[in-house]
Amino acid sequence: MRIYDIIDKKRHGGELTKGEIDFVISGYMKNEIPDYQISALLMAICINSMSENEVYYLTDSMVNSGECLNLDMLGDLSVDKHSTGGVGDKTTLIVAPIVASLGGKVAKMSGRGLGFTGGTIDKLEAIDGFKTSIDKADFLSQVENIGICVIGQSQSLAPADKKLYALRDVTATVESIPLIASSIMSKKIASGSKSIVLDVKVGSGAFMKAKSDASLLARTMIEIGKRFSRNVRALITNMDVPLGRCVGNALEVWEAIEVLSGRGEENLKNLCISIASNMLSCSLGIGENEATLRVNDAICSKKALSKLKEWVCMQGGDASCIENPSLFLNAKYKKEFKATNSGYITAINAQMVGTACMALGAGRIKKEDSIDKNAGVMLNYNYGDYVSKGDPLCVLYSSSDNLFSEAEGLLYSAFEISEQAPPKKDLILEVLK
Amino acid sequence: MRIYDIIDKKRHGGELTKGEIDFVISGYMKNEIPDYQISALLMAICINSMSENEVYYLTDSMVNSGECLNLDMLGDLSVDKHSTGGVGDKTTLIVAPIVASLGGKVAKMSGRGLGFTGGTIDKLEAIDGFKTSIDKADFLSQVENIGICVIGQSQSLAPADKKLYALRDVTATVESIPLIASSIMSKKIASGSKSIVLDVKVGSGAFMKAKSDASLLARTMIEIGKRFSRNVRALITNMDVPLGRCVGNALEVWEAIEVLSGRGEENLKNLCISIASNMLSCSLGIGENEATLRVNDAICSKKALSKLKEWVCMQGGDASCIENPSLFLNAKYKKEFKATNSGYITAINAQMVGTACMALGAGRIKKEDSIDKNAGVMLNYNYGDYVSKGDPLCVLYSSSDNLFSEAEGLLYSAFEISEQAPPKKDLILEVLK
Repeated sequence: MRIYDIIDKKRHGGELTKGEIDFVISGYMKNEIPDYQISALLMAICINSMSENEVYYLTDSMVNSGECLNLDMLGDLSVDKHSTGGVGDKTTLIVAPIVASLGGKVAKMSGRGLGFTGGTIDKLEAIDGFKTSIDKADFLSQVENIGICVIGQSQSLAPADKKLYALRDVTATVESIPLIASSIMSKKIASGSKSIVLDVKVGSGAFMKAKSDASLLARTMIEIGKRFSRNVRALITNMDVPLGRCVGNALEVWEAIEVLSGRGEENLKNLCISIASNMLSCSLGIGENEATLRVNDAICSKKALSKLKEWVCMQGGDASCIENPSLFLNAKYKKEFKATNSGYITAINAQMVGTACMALGAGRIKKEDSIDKNAGVMLNYNYGDYVSKGDPLCVLYSSSDNLFSEAEGLLYSAFEISEQAPPKKDLILEVLK
Repeated sequence: MRIYDIIDKKRHGGELTKGEIDFVISGYMKNEIPDYQISALLMAICINSMSENEVYYLTDSMVNSGECLNLDMLGDLSVDKHSTGGVGDKTTLIVAPIVASLGGKVAKMSGRGLGFTGGTIDKLEAIDGFKTSIDKADFLSQVENIGICVIGQSQSLAPADKKLYALRDVTATVESIPLIASSIMSKKIASGSKSIVLDVKVGSGAFMKAKSDASLLARTMIEIGKRFSRNVRALITNMDVPLGRCVGNALEVWEAIEVLSGRGEENLKNLCISIASNMLSCSLGIGENEATLRVNDAICSKKALSKLKEWVCMQGGDASCIENPSLFLNAKYKKEFKATNSGYITAINAQMVGTACMALGAGRIKKEDSIDKNAGVMLNYNYGDYVSKGDPLCVLYSSSDNLFSEAEGLLYSAFEISEQAPPKKDLILEVLK
């Protein structure tokens, strides 16, 4: 078998066999196939796509490139979630304790933020003392004991995905449904959970700009899951505007506590209930209506909030903050950003808000950058609200007062205010399984 | 400007600007852009193609990556030729002295053979003492004085083409009309001749399998030539069967002398007359009929044969061989290959004959391989001839008698013999200008 022939086959739109895909991945991991041949193959895949079989073989090959977590001791209760990345997406901090408080077992590995999208690990580390690096045995026993543990992505799971992704990132080959689907699913399959709930974002603040692409990505991931006997559900959700009111690590922890305390912005709360209900329904094998009732009860009864405290405590975090959430609104400098005219808010561009938060210190441009956990933006109004000139549209938080002007410039472009009320937009566009 | 954005643009079928293409080539030559980004871009070009403007910009950028030969002292007389590579193609050895004997100025750089196709430099080196490495000043003065000099490809002309070609060769991105056209033309433009006659091969023994592709390649190269104010003509010629009777370096020199002595196989002779007439017509600015008359006369009068002797002498070769051409049929071992049944020859697969010659020692698999100049195949019959069982279809030449069996195996597959006479095939399919 020769890599040249495999590249040539895919260049001409041929379907690669399992043997050929295994040859590519194992050769690449052993450094027998150089980057320049793999990047040519990746470009051919991006343009000519892959069949369902090829996507499965690629996922399988990447899963087999490293370790797999064995969660058999959790039976069918293990359940994972994944979001394709958005602005203000703090759902893991909310749904994980809800599901755990109701008997599901959430063994989750998360990532850090890069660019304008945030990462769960950065959000959790905004809690004083919270440890996101825990060895495997302790991770598994914490999940068994309290039903929840969230740590950083292990380097030993699907290392081929990591190596391929780094190459895709510099060769304009990230944007490809087969490659995105196999990348996400290789990590989820290797992470071992029996059920997986996916939140596929679509809109101006998401990687997928068209709903049809988001649906195709979701269906591709569901099909991969079936081949591995995993129970996968996918929500397609709108990411034109930031999710909830807060963007920024500590601010988002504050907002998660708000939701688990029975408050919080309606859209965010509804999305969390839907994700948690789907996770619970898969995990416990119960109907969705029953699951939704239990999820609502976990919020109203504060069972889920208690689970959050227990979880934070178990991972070394200062649980007292959970009881005193205003500690998460502690940036040294705050500044209101005011409406320059009156009218209805017809757009809050999520990507621009995310970029404004980066400008305030909340995000990273390069992986090595450090972040200001207290920086971010808290919205006072949302899409469709009426505001009068001079009303504070949002509050900017930062540890440095010379970062405001760049962020304000971005926010000027992010908000659109018009005399006409905009059409209502659904947050959850579709649920697939 | 970022290479990432350029790759992404071409991936989505966009048209690159002159600035973007210059950025790519100069960044690649300065090692600022790594192979893995260039190979991704090349694959996107192969699949999404390039516009006429892009092909011109790429050619120009590759020309500017190195030196250009200045042939101004030759006025409009300078004329070059190029063949896209075939089996048994010894036309340069024939047409160059014809044109030079009639006043054209042939300053030509040629390549070595690789794989089943031969190279003019290897053929010339089959003449004892012939030097193909000559410094620039001597090269130019020889062209001025005797009208002809052929040397190996200079490393300083279009070095970007060389670097890109090496990468294309291992990433399945050779086969692409815009990339082939710009690669050939960058070297021809840098070589400085005012006129260029191209022989674009099509058929089983050529890179282009379909006539439509060969015509498109020819038209693309003619258009590039126009942008550089060069006079370009292209012949589209059939390469289903080997050209002429001989394949192998010394054997082909013998056959070239045959043609220049007024003998030689009809098809080969006609092709040479056509190429030489086109070269002469461009070089002297005379009509094609007049050019053809002069070319025929140069052969009949042996003027061209004398020019060959003068040329060989000037480049240090033993000109006495030209008077005693049987010296080129001097392999240690010869073996007849006989027809296994009677009938008409309906196919002599050029690629397989070329591969059989490689098996006999005449070619290279890798660039570093040495070659047996005396090895090769001489056909006794050609396409359409009637043969009886036991007739010697061809004679195999080699310096080693244990190489015959592999070559014979290939030749069994190369010849097809059938009761029905095959349709006549034209060698010259089209002439474009």
